[in-house]
Amino acid sequence: MKNKRVGSRTVEMQHMPSIISTASIVGPKEGKGPLRDCFDKILDDDLDGEKTWELSECKMMKDTIELAVKKSDKGLKEVDYLIGGDLINQIWPFSFAARDLDVPFIGVYGACSTMAQSMCLGAMLIDGGFAQNVLAGTCSHYCTAERQFRFPLELGNQKPMTAQWTVTGAGCVLLSQYGDGPKVKYVTIGKIVDKGIKDGNNMGAAMAPAAVDTILAYFNDTNDDPNSFDLIATGDLGTVGKTITLDLLKQKNLDISKVYTDCGLEIFDLKGQDVHCGGSGCGCSAAVFSGYIYDKLKKKEFNKVMLVSTGAMLSPNSTLQKQTIPCIANAVVIVNE
Amino acid sequence: MKNKRVGSRTVEMQHMPSIISTASIVGPKEGKGPLRDCFDKILDDDLDGEKTWELSECKMMKDTIELAVKKSDKGLKEVDYLIGGDLINQIWPFSFAARDLDVPFIGVYGACSTMAQSMCLGAMLIDGGFAQNVLAGTCSHYCTAERQFRFPLELGNQKPMTAQWTVTGAGCVLLSQYGDGPKVKYVTIGKIVDKGIKDGNNMGAAMAPAAVDTILAYFNDTNDDPNSFDLIATGDLGTVGKTITLDLLKQKNLDISKVYTDCGLEIFDLKGQDVHCGGSGCGCSAAVFSGYIYDKLKKKEFNKVMLVSTGAMLSPNSTLQKQTIPCIANAVVIVNE
Repeated sequence: MKNKRVGSRTVEMQHMPSIISTASIVGPKEGKGPLRDCFDKILDDDLDGEKTWELSECKMMKDTIELAVKKSDKGLKEVDYLIGGDLINQIWPFSFAARDLDVPFIGVYGACSTMAQSMCLGAMLIDGGFAQNVLAGTCSHYCTAERQFRFPLELGNQKPMTAQWTVTGAGCVLLSQYGDGPKVKYVTIGKIVDKGIKDGNNMGAAMAPAAVDTILAYFNDTNDDPNSFDLIATGDLGTVGKTITLDLLKQKNLDISKVYTDCGLEIFDLKGQDVHCGGSGCGCSAAVFSGYIYDKLKKKEFNKVMLVSTGAMLSPNSTLQKQTIPCIANAVVIVNE
Repeated sequence: MKNKRVGSRTVEMQHMPSIISTASIVGPKEGKGPLRDCFDKILDDDLDGEKTWELSECKMMKDTIELAVKKSDKGLKEVDYLIGGDLINQIWPFSFAARDLDVPFIGVYGACSTMAQSMCLGAMLIDGGFAQNVLAGTCSHYCTAERQFRFPLELGNQKPMTAQWTVTGAGCVLLSQYGDGPKVKYVTIGKIVDKGIKDGNNMGAAMAPAAVDTILAYFNDTNDDPNSFDLIATGDLGTVGKTITLDLLKQKNLDISKVYTDCGLEIFDLKGQDVHCGGSGCGCSAAVFSGYIYDKLKKKEFNKVMLVSTGAMLSPNSTLQKQTIPCIANAVVIVNE
């Protein structure tokens, strides 16, 4: 058996799985943002015909999964595993979306790191010979996340400027052993990093050290050159987290500033859309990758991209019990080769 | 690349990973049950010196992980991935347990199917060449689960006789590419199965069809003989779920009755311990496998075992929104060969 490990934490695919299709659906606010033309569908309203926001989130996820399959030359019957999760308790939206799909199901919880986490697992299961086709996806919904993690929307609660706006959106990729499309080359799984931040309204600061840990691990493991990338995109660090990430990396003599962005800064117009520090949520990096980034990869405008989805593993109850916020970042490197 | 799929849903390990050590810690009630001598540690009380039940659950999980490593010839630094989750919102206990362990972390959510799910993923990551050593584990705690999924304990709420008793317990296995110990041979990942049950106090009935689906898939895929097993153990179906499982399998002409048990029926004395239909919770199959079953495998009293952990992917909020209960069962076959 070939050992696929590179350095201490990164693994290299031996037969790089292709991303043969993707799909993304977003909410109305995201549909007014700068990436509006990259998404497959924009919802007219947050309920989308359902009775509750949670059921709307389930529907958005299911529609996105089915659309990713429809856009490929595969059928659901050819999919070996569906991997994903979301922010809502007991990953309700994602697992309920899977009810009618009849596909073996691997539920994960990585908070907002779920998109990269699911892609990492999917790529490894294909490269390991366990699957030919894997769906990996995730979603978030502003209204469900707000009322679960913070306050009822009806309260009209105000937030500090370090807070972010949870994206209403879903993204899904179809990974395949064969087929055309950009390929997954490297995977770096994150560690739980907790630097003692307790402020749930400053997730960027909490998550930045986790992003730094994973990005450093990748570059230490591979000796890769940051400037060989067309894009390194963290998931949802926002303006505060992005600045901290660049600063901490520079302290470690790694400068990624020429190619670095954060999905939470791409999906909204920060000047015009009143989202404070930027977008957040599982759906943020999921929709930005499945829409915008994948599109650029397909057109060969990007040929080497790192997606580093970032997650804060806090619970409303852990915050009430005065606990700090453990964070994680998972990285997946996608290339046209 | 060798295709490791057998039939439609099962995969066979090419270089079977060994389970080189396990650990289990349980609460006081479980410590009075029939398996009391199989566990590594029995807590004196539900808080175990912590301020809250959730923090006690975190500590129990962390202690169990560290003990599994200590009982092996490996160190934490040699562990490539820690895989697991639990029942509590945002898998707080498991991810908080990982804070100080400094090991790449893969959080999953499979409700009470988590033990087998984590073992399945761990075995595949090792067999695929991505890892040499993987920790897989999970936990549950009666007091945290009751107050999250049902009612405050202080209410002294009564339950119907179809209800089960959430196990306070944690289990963890250390899987390794090399080394002695029983080996993981087959993995069958479950589908989401939802037969329309809405009663959160009858999880056995809700989960049984998922167990049946996965068990049937395994036997259809492999043409294996049920009586070649020393034990087929579902996770936490209890008396109601066990009966339904046997009945539904017989309707499909599969008789596993000679070798079948349910971990929820093994961990408690149903006549003397007032647990209604039996034990439940992630920790149920985790502690029973890591304690009792692993011990029998090591002694060669068992040489072929299937662990089918069963999970109900409901959320308290999904129940409030009148949704049915989606369920899943993951199976892992362990052999002495």
